[in-house]
Amino acid sequence: MKFQNDLIIRSANGEDIERYPVWLMRQAGRILPEYRAVRKKLSGFKELVKSPEFAAEVTIQPIDILNVDAAIIFSDILVVPEAMGLNYEMIEKKGPYFEKTIKSINDLSCVEKEFDIEDRLGYVSQAIKITKKELNSRVPLIGFAGAPWTIFCYMTEGEGSKTFSKARKILYTDPILAHELLDSITEVTIKYLKLQISSGVNIVQVFDSWAGILGKDQYVEFGLKYINKIADAITEVPLTIFAKGAYNSIREISAMNCNTIGVDWNMNINEVREIIGESKTIQGNLDPCVLYSSHSEIEKLTNKMLDSFKSKRHIVNLGHGVYPDMDPEKVKTFIKTVKNYEINY
Amino acid sequence: MKFQNDLIIRSANGEDIERYPVWLMRQAGRILPEYRAVRKKLSGFKELVKSPEFAAEVTIQPIDILNVDAAIIFSDILVVPEAMGLNYEMIEKKGPYFEKTIKSINDLSCVEKEFDIEDRLGYVSQAIKITKKELNSRVPLIGFAGAPWTIFCYMTEGEGSKTFSKARKILYTDPILAHELLDSITEVTIKYLKLQISSGVNIVQVFDSWAGILGKDQYVEFGLKYINKIADAITEVPLTIFAKGAYNSIREISAMNCNTIGVDWNMNINEVREIIGESKTIQGNLDPCVLYSSHSEIEKLTNKMLDSFKSKRHIVNLGHGVYPDMDPEKVKTFIKTVKNYEINY
Repeated sequence: MKFQNDLIIRSANGEDIERYPVWLMRQAGRILPEYRAVRKKLSGFKELVKSPEFAAEVTIQPIDILNVDAAIIFSDILVVPEAMGLNYEMIEKKGPYFEKTIKSINDLSCVEKEFDIEDRLGYVSQAIKITKKELNSRVPLIGFAGAPWTIFCYMTEGEGSKTFSKARKILYTDPILAHELLDSITEVTIKYLKLQISSGVNIVQVFDSWAGILGKDQYVEFGLKYINKIADAITEVPLTIFAKGAYNSIREISAMNCNTIGVDWNMNINEVREIIGESKTIQGNLDPCVLYSSHSEIEKLTNKMLDSFKSKRHIVNLGHGVYPDMDPEKVKTFIKTVKNYEINY
Repeated sequence: MKFQNDLIIRSANGEDIERYPVWLMRQAGRILPEYRAVRKKLSGFKELVKSPEFAAEVTIQPIDILNVDAAIIFSDILVVPEAMGLNYEMIEKKGPYFEKTIKSINDLSCVEKEFDIEDRLGYVSQAIKITKKELNSRVPLIGFAGAPWTIFCYMTEGEGSKTFSKARKILYTDPILAHELLDSITEVTIKYLKLQISSGVNIVQVFDSWAGILGKDQYVEFGLKYINKIADAITEVPLTIFAKGAYNSIREISAMNCNTIGVDWNMNINEVREIIGESKTIQGNLDPCVLYSSHSEIEKLTNKMLDSFKSKRHIVNLGHGVYPDMDPEKVKTFIKTVKNYEINY
């Protein structure tokens, strides 16, 4: 497929690029008044996720409004545990809440992994198909899923947590349960990502939002092992792995079958580059809070980051999702600065 | 002053020790039924903090019950912002809440730094004096304060947060306000720690709970700068700095006038030792969730950690506070394992 703008694909593949591609995590969301207008028509966040026409509409908004180099399908990582049998609510200003959680091996009876993926997650597939059609090859479309460890956290904890101590407790008290559940999540996630790919996404990203709460040994055993399975299974399109806070596992991630490594704003790009060499693309990592600064300061700090890059293998992004109260005009300044930056090597 | 057991002081000072000292962050607290019994007599957490007799009682409980090698005064890091003029409530199961927060330079008029420290925080001083008397030189008493950056987070954010984006926003939009407030917090914190020392504490620890949410450059500018001022000012007793999540600032911390560096469970003790050499003691860092395991597993994993130590300069602790739902019997197994461990070099 030919895109009018395929920069992000070329950068992910380590091909030559004339400038750095740029997009933002959570670009399709509350920062845009146009998103809030769509959201208002519906009863809640989950209804939007499950309405393919509307999901496609908000997916495309940042392409038209912010002029980013990729779209990312509007959805939620928690559609996977829901498809597996754990229903959740998204509580305004609080976050997700699962009434039923996994506490012991007996609870695994509530968890399904053998089901027709299109049957339960077909709404994502439809949203992708509509988006692709409406995007009309302007830019690539990114699909995504949560990493098994992060999904495990929600399935066991039932909601956000400062310590995720219930999730982490299971790793010590019942590692068999942990591996069994992680294995099921992984299996479903691979099927889900393949559904997204067959529906039309051109890159996929795996988000391990809670990577940083595990020590190295446990992250290797309960986190990276399963991301690696996903990485080996996804061969159709470039893969990005974003393991937030996993500063001491960059080497292991760089050994995986992935194209791009997402990096949060606490990590030093040059240290990451030193560890991974030129074999992977780095995605990130401006501190989202920079976008609260003045336009000139945003320009300055964005250029400072770009100046620090010593390679063409970069996809520019923030080090985390854009915060909902950020001014779209500031986001535009960030994007324009990246687009105006001349790579001179 | 002679202690029956001064292991922790000797370890902090890099002197010879016959075995590793051990204590737990949050050892005086909800894990103990005896603490909960005292707490029940009072209207809330803050009343306990402000009742010297009761605060002393719960401070000593873990010495009698858990047999740890040090007591830590029962208090709260947020007594400092309260003394400075921002009152807070501790909301059950939610955490602290400040009605008034610092949003702009005008709000600094609510913040005081020139006040008699004993006048406002005398209840801590009294609790220390009572504790010292009742401890009767059995073990040293640890005093503590929050690091300026962490206190700043609460004063600007008003409550806990996943991103602390309001606090971090100010670093970009109004660095002058940030430095002014951090400076005031630092000044008060030094006076407060000196009050604790003159009242009788034998070691002090500075907790930077939210160190890990800043990138390196900002942590140097808005975090370490102020911890360093505290480190230079506190010369009377050994100082421990625990900057949670500040994995990329260990080198800078090791250059400070402190004795001990606290390390969370995500950091690798040997990597930390390599960076800091033998000039400092390391405190930590067993994953608190290990204490959810079986007794034999706790023994095994504690011994594994101790075996990894290549130096006598260690104070054993968890990598974070003990979680309230942990079984005191499991905590005892951890402590016994450390006490039975033979250092053979």
